[in-house]
Amino acid sequence: MSEEGRPGEFELIERYFKPLASPPGAFGLTDDVAVMQPRAGEELVLKVDTLAEGVHFFSDDPPEGIAAKALRINLSDLAGKGAEPRGYLLALSLRSDWTEAWVAGFSRGLAADQHMYGLSLLGGDTTRASGGTTVSITAIGSVPEGKLVRRSGARPGDIVFVTGTIGDAALGLRVRRKEFDQRVPGAEHLLRRYMIPEPRLRLAPVLRRYASAALDVSDGLVGDFGHICKESGVTGTIEVALVPMSPPAQRLVESQPDAMHWVLTGGDDYEVLATVPEGSAEAFERDAKEAGVAVARIGHVAAGSGPPTVLDNAGNPLNFPGLSFDHFRSEPEK
Amino acid sequence: MSEEGRPGEFELIERYFKPLASPPGAFGLTDDVAVMQPRAGEELVLKVDTLAEGVHFFSDDPPEGIAAKALRINLSDLAGKGAEPRGYLLALSLRSDWTEAWVAGFSRGLAADQHMYGLSLLGGDTTRASGGTTVSITAIGSVPEGKLVRRSGARPGDIVFVTGTIGDAALGLRVRRKEFDQRVPGAEHLLRRYMIPEPRLRLAPVLRRYASAALDVSDGLVGDFGHICKESGVTGTIEVALVPMSPPAQRLVESQPDAMHWVLTGGDDYEVLATVPEGSAEAFERDAKEAGVAVARIGHVAAGSGPPTVLDNAGNPLNFPGLSFDHFRSEPEK
Repeated sequence: MSEEGRPGEFELIERYFKPLASPPGAFGLTDDVAVMQPRAGEELVLKVDTLAEGVHFFSDDPPEGIAAKALRINLSDLAGKGAEPRGYLLALSLRSDWTEAWVAGFSRGLAADQHMYGLSLLGGDTTRASGGTTVSITAIGSVPEGKLVRRSGARPGDIVFVTGTIGDAALGLRVRRKEFDQRVPGAEHLLRRYMIPEPRLRLAPVLRRYASAALDVSDGLVGDFGHICKESGVTGTIEVALVPMSPPAQRLVESQPDAMHWVLTGGDDYEVLATVPEGSAEAFERDAKEAGVAVARIGHVAAGSGPPTVLDNAGNPLNFPGLSFDHFRSEPEK
Repeated sequence: MSEEGRPGEFELIERYFKPLASPPGAFGLTDDVAVMQPRAGEELVLKVDTLAEGVHFFSDDPPEGIAAKALRINLSDLAGKGAEPRGYLLALSLRSDWTEAWVAGFSRGLAADQHMYGLSLLGGDTTRASGGTTVSITAIGSVPEGKLVRRSGARPGDIVFVTGTIGDAALGLRVRRKEFDQRVPGAEHLLRRYMIPEPRLRLAPVLRRYASAALDVSDGLVGDFGHICKESGVTGTIEVALVPMSPPAQRLVESQPDAMHWVLTGGDDYEVLATVPEGSAEAFERDAKEAGVAVARIGHVAAGSGPPTVLDNAGNPLNFPGLSFDHFRSEPEK
């Protein structure tokens, strides 16, 4: 049952994917579908995201990391909406010269993250690709009924918060592409932040409690704040001086001021951007700290419409050629 | 906002995918996730399947048909489990030289099928592929709680039924590949059956009422009956003389007896194979007829284990080199 010594579809499932499928709804991947029931008072939350070789990851990236990123970018979406992960479906299209070692590493990456985030593979499809490998994951989460944190609830006067640090991934991508000197201090940190996002799942219940709007930052800080403004029918301001940056990102921007553009619009941060009514801002900060997630005030929501204003360190508005990172048009890995 | 005159990610969503997303759970594709709640007493059913250019479809296939097939192969899985479709998520990875006309045709194909099957786009992700276009659809269905028709319920003495006709798609693929004379009578019918499956959704409630086990035939009739036998801990027999075939398929097999192998194992039929306790067989036939779905008795389930027996027209067991169509290893379009 092998083709040039490689396992077939059924063997791949048996060896590498069945062990990832826990009871009950996945039926151990021995049936055609999975079933899923929200717990009482909850509804299910659905999200699909794709990583394509040569577009979103490099051919020689470790398969464990590709698996982790493919899963985590979806979990990050759940986190940004106040939802908790329940399970996922995997559509894996493998390049023609795939190896069993690659699939083994990929499934190890999924296993480690399933363990860390407490979720299970529900079902999947493994097929061949005509070009590079493509990984598409559909994440299933849950949220108390009606409690999804939308993009559309921001109101004038709300405080804008962001988790963690911004810009590491966009700079890390440029380290990976060797656009920066590899020996830039902290290059490792930036690269790691680009390769392996950390979904802020512990913030989900805190968002449900206080946030008027939220999302995870994947298109870039300014562009994603623009999404919230647009859907909420408001505008707002972000102050560059308040945007939290890691020490390596800070050093890079000091030596190459142009890099600030990538910090603010580069995308792939997978941090949470949230708006919180002013009266709840302190409680939000307190509960976020208790949950172990760093949050920083970076601006505020204002009445009006149009793209948000970004103020530089001197308080002057910045202009961007494009406010947002378009995953479709860009070629981050070319 | 265009690259060589083509729309970007956000414009594609706005023009071609937002119109496919009906309220309420999809939020008009203006948020990061969708929400979904089963109706009271129901649970959700999940399935993902992928079509890759050059592997599962030809580069010059019409995009309307690719869209329909990508959706229908998933709906067929739901039908075979007794479930009803509720919605779907789309992950679309476009080849680098995609055209807006292709995307427009693709979305028209989805729109037509959404209308026909009464479901809506819930969410999606559009990105670029490094090779050919890949379409991955996650279908969400629902079923009364605990009523999913499993692979594992077949019992000795049950009657084996199949819907529609078997073998058309496998022969249609060979027409498409020009392995048969294009002027073979009924070539159009075979080709159409390969290109556009018809999910047997109207049979779903009938399956829930009577079937002990069921699935949709995608890996080939014999192989898929083997899946039921394996998961049910039984074996069984299929009689070739009873397998329903369309007139064009029949004529082809008469002129080229080797083609019978493809009928029985070629796959992509997207008909439903079901086992029904003997005492319910007549009621199953009656209710299937009322639902407008043709069903035929083709064999029976027996005590024991191992692959099912296939009896030729003279009542002698047939041997197959491989009992099942492996979508992973095959190259149907090369």
